[in-house]
Amino acid sequence: MAPTVTAAMVIIGDEILSGRTKDANLAYLGKELNRLGVRLKEVRVVADDQDAIVAAVNHCRAAFDYVFTTGGIGPTHDDITAAAIAAAFGRKLIRNPEAVTILEEAYERTGLELNEARMSMANTPEGAVLVDNPVSGAPGFQVENVFVFAGVPKIMQAMFDGMTHRLTGGAPLHGRSVAVDLGEGAIAVNLEQVLERHEGITIGSYPYYHSGNFGVKLVLRGTDEAILDAAAADLIAVLEASGGNPYLEDGE
Amino acid sequence: MAPTVTAAMVIIGDEILSGRTKDANLAYLGKELNRLGVRLKEVRVVADDQDAIVAAVNHCRAAFDYVFTTGGIGPTHDDITAAAIAAAFGRKLIRNPEAVTILEEAYERTGLELNEARMSMANTPEGAVLVDNPVSGAPGFQVENVFVFAGVPKIMQAMFDGMTHRLTGGAPLHGRSVAVDLGEGAIAVNLEQVLERHEGITIGSYPYYHSGNFGVKLVLRGTDEAILDAAAADLIAVLEASGGNPYLEDGE
Repeated sequence: MAPTVTAAMVIIGDEILSGRTKDANLAYLGKELNRLGVRLKEVRVVADDQDAIVAAVNHCRAAFDYVFTTGGIGPTHDDITAAAIAAAFGRKLIRNPEAVTILEEAYERTGLELNEARMSMANTPEGAVLVDNPVSGAPGFQVENVFVFAGVPKIMQAMFDGMTHRLTGGAPLHGRSVAVDLGEGAIAVNLEQVLERHEGITIGSYPYYHSGNFGVKLVLRGTDEAILDAAAADLIAVLEASGGNPYLEDGE
Repeated sequence: MAPTVTAAMVIIGDEILSGRTKDANLAYLGKELNRLGVRLKEVRVVADDQDAIVAAVNHCRAAFDYVFTTGGIGPTHDDITAAAIAAAFGRKLIRNPEAVTILEEAYERTGLELNEARMSMANTPEGAVLVDNPVSGAPGFQVENVFVFAGVPKIMQAMFDGMTHRLTGGAPLHGRSVAVDLGEGAIAVNLEQVLERHEGITIGSYPYYHSGNFGVKLVLRGTDEAILDAAAADLIAVLEASGGNPYLEDGE
């Protein structure tokens, strides 16, 4: 069986903590990593504060196979991620020659001045490998198992999509989703029975209430699709026996 | 000057990490805490896993004044928050008599059976103080500086709104927001100058691109409104001198 490959995400930014900006990168990263067989196990949101970034990154890079950071790589005073990553690794922050070339070409195309603030986006820890930014030029970078992305979702997603070949996934996690018109409390025992009868699966239970209807979506997850299919059929049978009208949803 | 009061949030749930569910509680909590003079300094998202929950809660309750958890307090097998909080504090998990009464009354009103799975929602660490749930009955709880809320946003918000009198805030953080039609890279120097001239403020810089327009929103924050007003006026003057058309936005 393929090993479990794990990841953590560090979201950097005062604007997320103050509630001003809603993060849109966590859900994208969680889904895409799952497809690659990498499990997102923990996320930390930290302020634009070097000590907080260093502590989060150093914990996560030791505890998980991969770490992805988002935010704080622009040209202004509150963009301190590159310096914080350098500090976390005990490396010097340098002006990366390859990044300088990329910025020079990008700003020549736009006609904007490549001033010192913009040029600071070419700073990386020594020995970093760049991550391509097809949207706005200024690159992300990788140091060992830590990948540093922009916070703007369109840029973050493009950066991620362009570097997935650098990741080694494990067994992809598959899913089956069953909806039923019963309350969570009515079916808790059913779920435990199904879990006992099928190895290596989990069942997430997510109640919903909308348009006057209530019910539960049950998401079965596991690496073996045959076991998942058997467990979903078993679950549907026990929910029917409990008086519900369960059905398997499309997709997961 | 009032002391700075800090908080952390622990979001509990596999469904957030897998990208299946988008968290909606962070932004609400961040904004509401700010209004109360409490700064949300860190957020951790962890799996439905006791060790992960215990580690996050024990770190946060030592490092911050308040901790708020969301998720994992329903009736199914994956709802392990109460047991995890008991473990984090080294307390016994008990069936809370006050919570039992609340559930009995709530289920009598609905006519649903108060079975063992539903009754498990009355389990709390020994010595916990309940948090009222006006939406669906099953209460949250408080142990020392840790508040345990539901994950469903409507319930989480009602629980929070009902217990804010238990929090002692510091100086509320006020904000001013200035929008300008210039690029971040063009104004980075301006921001540093304004920051140097006004004590005790921060400026967040948030680029936007939409409908063919680009620009930056600059959010000034601080506890002293007179200083904030002076800094916003100064910022607008230097941005105008740089060729921009800045304006103060309503609200923050």
